[in-house]
Amino acid sequence: MLVDMTIAIDAMGGDQAPEMTIKGVAQAASENPNVHFILFGDEKLIDPLLSEASVLQKRVTVHHTDQRITSDMKPSYALRSSKHSSMRLAIECASNGEAKGVVSAGNTGAYMALAKMILKTLEGIDRPAITAVMPSSRGKYVMLDLGANIECTIENIVQFALMGEVFAEYVLGIKKPSIGLLNVGVEDLKGNATVKAAQRVLRESGQLQNFYGFIEGDDIAAGTTDVVVTDGFTGNISLKTMEGTAKLLNTLLQHQIRRSFLSRFGYLFMRGAVKELKAQLDPRNYNGAIFLGLNGIAVKSHGGTDVVGFANAIKVVIEMISNGVNNHIREELASLRGKSPHIMRANHS
Amino acid sequence: MLVDMTIAIDAMGGDQAPEMTIKGVAQAASENPNVHFILFGDEKLIDPLLSEASVLQKRVTVHHTDQRITSDMKPSYALRSSKHSSMRLAIECASNGEAKGVVSAGNTGAYMALAKMILKTLEGIDRPAITAVMPSSRGKYVMLDLGANIECTIENIVQFALMGEVFAEYVLGIKKPSIGLLNVGVEDLKGNATVKAAQRVLRESGQLQNFYGFIEGDDIAAGTTDVVVTDGFTGNISLKTMEGTAKLLNTLLQHQIRRSFLSRFGYLFMRGAVKELKAQLDPRNYNGAIFLGLNGIAVKSHGGTDVVGFANAIKVVIEMISNGVNNHIREELASLRGKSPHIMRANHS
Repeated sequence: MLVDMTIAIDAMGGDQAPEMTIKGVAQAASENPNVHFILFGDEKLIDPLLSEASVLQKRVTVHHTDQRITSDMKPSYALRSSKHSSMRLAIECASNGEAKGVVSAGNTGAYMALAKMILKTLEGIDRPAITAVMPSSRGKYVMLDLGANIECTIENIVQFALMGEVFAEYVLGIKKPSIGLLNVGVEDLKGNATVKAAQRVLRESGQLQNFYGFIEGDDIAAGTTDVVVTDGFTGNISLKTMEGTAKLLNTLLQHQIRRSFLSRFGYLFMRGAVKELKAQLDPRNYNGAIFLGLNGIAVKSHGGTDVVGFANAIKVVIEMISNGVNNHIREELASLRGKSPHIMRANHS
Repeated sequence: MLVDMTIAIDAMGGDQAPEMTIKGVAQAASENPNVHFILFGDEKLIDPLLSEASVLQKRVTVHHTDQRITSDMKPSYALRSSKHSSMRLAIECASNGEAKGVVSAGNTGAYMALAKMILKTLEGIDRPAITAVMPSSRGKYVMLDLGANIECTIENIVQFALMGEVFAEYVLGIKKPSIGLLNVGVEDLKGNATVKAAQRVLRESGQLQNFYGFIEGDDIAAGTTDVVVTDGFTGNISLKTMEGTAKLLNTLLQHQIRRSFLSRFGYLFMRGAVKELKAQLDPRNYNGAIFLGLNGIAVKSHGGTDVVGFANAIKVVIEMISNGVNNHIREELASLRGKSPHIMRANHS
């Protein structure tokens, strides 16, 4: 059963905005007849694009603004001086209830800062985490934090683990998802003080249904656990290391293929398989990172993505809304608060 | 011109020891006629293997001991209770001048702890870093620390950068190697307090010939810089993330190839290219991580490597000795001490 919903779109965020965002909205609209969109941005640029997309007739409302947040704007400046920017107005729209969620492909730092200020965090969550779904050899996994929190406390890590569990269960549909804490070894003594303490707290609280414990870097892509929990510094570097490694292997393989006639010949027959592999790993199909832990739903699209990727980011918002992820996180936190009050924020500040 | 040298070998370290270590020594011996080896381990096991390797006649001395450090032994226990272990005796041999360096494929934690205690660090270096050479799309790069120091100070990071520069210059033969600090972004404001301060110190000291500044995770495999400097927590996770990603891509590609007759057919012609690629990335050719910063030369071989890999680890020791890497690090540190005394250990403790 489809639930009617409205989603706010920062039409001006991203390298190819607003063409890319409007076409992405059109694609999402055709796939999701139950969704209405409120677009924020420059109507002089948006209106001609809308007239080309018949699927968007009566499906969108445009709120005009000619202010936008540029990609090089500092978050602190964006907080002070962006009252009428398309990004801020879109977030406010998701905050005041007009829309159920918001998508932007704009400046990540500004988006996170504005979303935190306007939407606030869920009760019991100190800081939201950038969360994404990624492909492993066993299927898909959820990883967080991918870069929002450069330095994390024990409580942050514990909260990320709880949120990751709920996300894997309700968005990916994994029963009793396994949760791994990224570390430099699997023995209890390994790692820095924060991960060691976080593991102890997670074990003792018994809150997670299926806490695996420590995992190492090679466990991520192996799909050893359904959820990979780490601080934003390590998570961001690990994510980008994966991207770099995949690019390196592709470059070197293409180079080796070009070196001989035989392999160029063989490659003609293998292109289908390579194409399938590329589709399987296509970053556009994984586009849309959630700022998980906010009292609202904000999804960040990669700034350089295309129509397919932006439509996927919208799909992520729709899944978050349809599955009531934030309500499930609230319940999980309330239950933990009952059992282990010492790890909740209220008792720390 | 070849310099005569003696290398100490822990013959009992590694999953397949001593067969793998002795055969690895034999391979290294045939490639390096100027090197003599002192083997530490159980002569009942070693002697039969030596009699099979004619190249080792008159090239090895065996010091018998039946004590060994097992892979599950804690470093603290190894420090107290391993007086006559093959690993410890081999390190002592490299410390008292009998040998110029030592190789072990045994327990990493115990090896690092014993090597630090026995060899001590170079003057001006607080802690040694696990350092390795790896393949990028532009050739090779040096990365450190890969896991020795889970929590690092600004001084540690600065010292790693200096050691990495010397290593890249004298072992890889790169003139004015570029040095990158691994971070979550390239802007000065990005990152944790340690990397931000380390970047400032490295810039202000002017000691590095070619300091690039911050790099991100995808710059590692892209070969953006010749040296990648990071703390041991991030470095270890990043290294293992690369391994996991490479394994995932290989698994998925093989899976896609098996799915269609055409691609299986094409693959027949491409196997040469894939084999070349695998050789290019063969971890055995990159085996041998240096504990850089010790007042002596200690190289760690992967415990699960084979003869080719172990011989490569021995080659790393030979290169460290031949190129006088430690002397060059001493000079670099002395020069820095003159210019920027505030970042040297003596002024901190």
